[in-house]
Amino acid sequence: MIASTQVLGISNAIVDVLAHVDEEFLARIDAPKGSMVLVDADRAQEVYGMMGPATEMSGGSVANTIAGFANIGGRAAYIGRVADDQLGRIFRHDMQSLGVDVRLEAAKDGAPTARCYILITPDGQRTMQTYLGACLELNESDVTERTAGKPEIILLEGYVWDTPHGQAALNAAFRIADRGDTGIALSLSDADCVARHRLGFLDAITNQVKLVIGDDSEFIRLFEVDTLEEAIKKAAEYDCVFAMTRSEKGSVIVNGDETVAQKAYPVDEVIDTTGAGDAFAAAFLFGWVSDKSLQECADLGSFAGATVIQQVGARLEKDFLKNADLSRS
Amino acid sequence: MIASTQVLGISNAIVDVLAHVDEEFLARIDAPKGSMVLVDADRAQEVYGMMGPATEMSGGSVANTIAGFANIGGRAAYIGRVADDQLGRIFRHDMQSLGVDVRLEAAKDGAPTARCYILITPDGQRTMQTYLGACLELNESDVTERTAGKPEIILLEGYVWDTPHGQAALNAAFRIADRGDTGIALSLSDADCVARHRLGFLDAITNQVKLVIGDDSEFIRLFEVDTLEEAIKKAAEYDCVFAMTRSEKGSVIVNGDETVAQKAYPVDEVIDTTGAGDAFAAAFLFGWVSDKSLQECADLGSFAGATVIQQVGARLEKDFLKNADLSRS
Repeated sequence: MIASTQVLGISNAIVDVLAHVDEEFLARIDAPKGSMVLVDADRAQEVYGMMGPATEMSGGSVANTIAGFANIGGRAAYIGRVADDQLGRIFRHDMQSLGVDVRLEAAKDGAPTARCYILITPDGQRTMQTYLGACLELNESDVTERTAGKPEIILLEGYVWDTPHGQAALNAAFRIADRGDTGIALSLSDADCVARHRLGFLDAITNQVKLVIGDDSEFIRLFEVDTLEEAIKKAAEYDCVFAMTRSEKGSVIVNGDETVAQKAYPVDEVIDTTGAGDAFAAAFLFGWVSDKSLQECADLGSFAGATVIQQVGARLEKDFLKNADLSRS
Repeated sequence: MIASTQVLGISNAIVDVLAHVDEEFLARIDAPKGSMVLVDADRAQEVYGMMGPATEMSGGSVANTIAGFANIGGRAAYIGRVADDQLGRIFRHDMQSLGVDVRLEAAKDGAPTARCYILITPDGQRTMQTYLGACLELNESDVTERTAGKPEIILLEGYVWDTPHGQAALNAAFRIADRGDTGIALSLSDADCVARHRLGFLDAITNQVKLVIGDDSEFIRLFEVDTLEEAIKKAAEYDCVFAMTRSEKGSVIVNGDETVAQKAYPVDEVIDTTGAGDAFAAAFLFGWVSDKSLQECADLGSFAGATVIQQVGARLEKDFLKNADLSRS
């Protein structure tokens, strides 16, 4: 079972707590609209106390990707820290119910399960405040031959670099990949995260990573350039595949001198853009482990992105592949 | 503060756990589509284990009404049992964040907070399995002069009759109402619940209840008749106001010989009919405590119902009254 895993995700395991707020609320908690910040336990408690009624659902960027990958038929496993509390049980249930092999037990002590307050203003924009809680305890001992097994791909999340022992845990993943036939993929998470850990990311890309997935703003930040064209030029210098998403402009895949452009799929009505990148990654990886061409991977990714933004909720639904045109592959 | 409460709700405090399922899933758990059944802890665990990923949000019929009533500006209080666990904290937070005065502390021991698995099939229909947990422990000692205070209205939920000490708790509410200037309102919950407790409901209506809110199928069951017309005739015999909702046909209010018919508001697109009845009740009660006429109460209720079915989620949003035409009142 463990031997047959296609993609193992290592990331921050987070339950999203979504609430509608007005602009004045953001001013009151001093949060610029659209920002994503980390908060401590006290601040998390304070913001929650001020927030209106909320909706809870499992989230986390790479966790969303892994959930989507499993849901469309991929063999997925997951390493991420939750506490043995109700949010932790919800997170584990939601992953396992999609067939994801959740490799870590819930921690009996330590900080509570992480949560991300997603504050939605009337214009649909999202402002996030994340309390990492149990995620901060991820460490080297969580990523072993036993827990990681021999997946085809280990997908890492940039956000893990934000945790105190995250780098050590990721080094353990690199060592496991070195020893076996495992490739490392990296999801860049967000542009601010890239800015925080730019050199670490570039070092990993130089030495280990076979596939980097991110959006244009993240790659521009990663390579410290001004335009996507310059980022593509920089990316071509690495022995690595770069999948760059561009919202309604589709995506560009860079593999050395080879560049593949993929258009976005037409969308009737955008319901919610959340999770488009994570869904792209899920479907792209599904193509990748199925030995599809980069063009086909990008095509699947774009279709997944277009599907998710026309539904409520960030995660890719099961019947997505029914509608994908895989016959060309 | 306690003296100024307009509506105090006493009901089952439940967190909804919503998941999309297919028809085959319902067959596998042997649940007729559209059914609402109570399940024990083992069964709840089993069904949850089989369910896909879910979304959690505070629910419960009368709790929804109280939340909506508070959200549109009413002074509301609430008595319902939750455990001191994360779902219980979520429930309490969501109520308090709307300004509801939550009168019971979370129970430190006993069963976990109640949850209702809401299984949504592709046709949009909802099949519910409710584990009552902490709600089963509601008892007489929870409803006292101290916890209940002197509200204008105590709104009872039919479902409370399903709990072992519910009748005793409600009798305590009746005694408090007798002593003061408090009226009792009853929400019929659902037709099967009415069938289970028909005589108890009729007894309460004869002796105590000043306002009964329900849909046509519930009143037909209550009076053991075949048509709404017959139900109206029966209702006219009681010294009580009956607010009967009829979905797209609007509502009928019966007060002895006086019958008020209210049309439904036109609806552009039905997003989700869940909570229409609870929202009707919230707005109707808001009119009632504001000394509006029955016609005006029904008008507000219909507008609230139409508003809720055009949004995702069962609870009435804050800005609802902005759009209601209260100038006629």
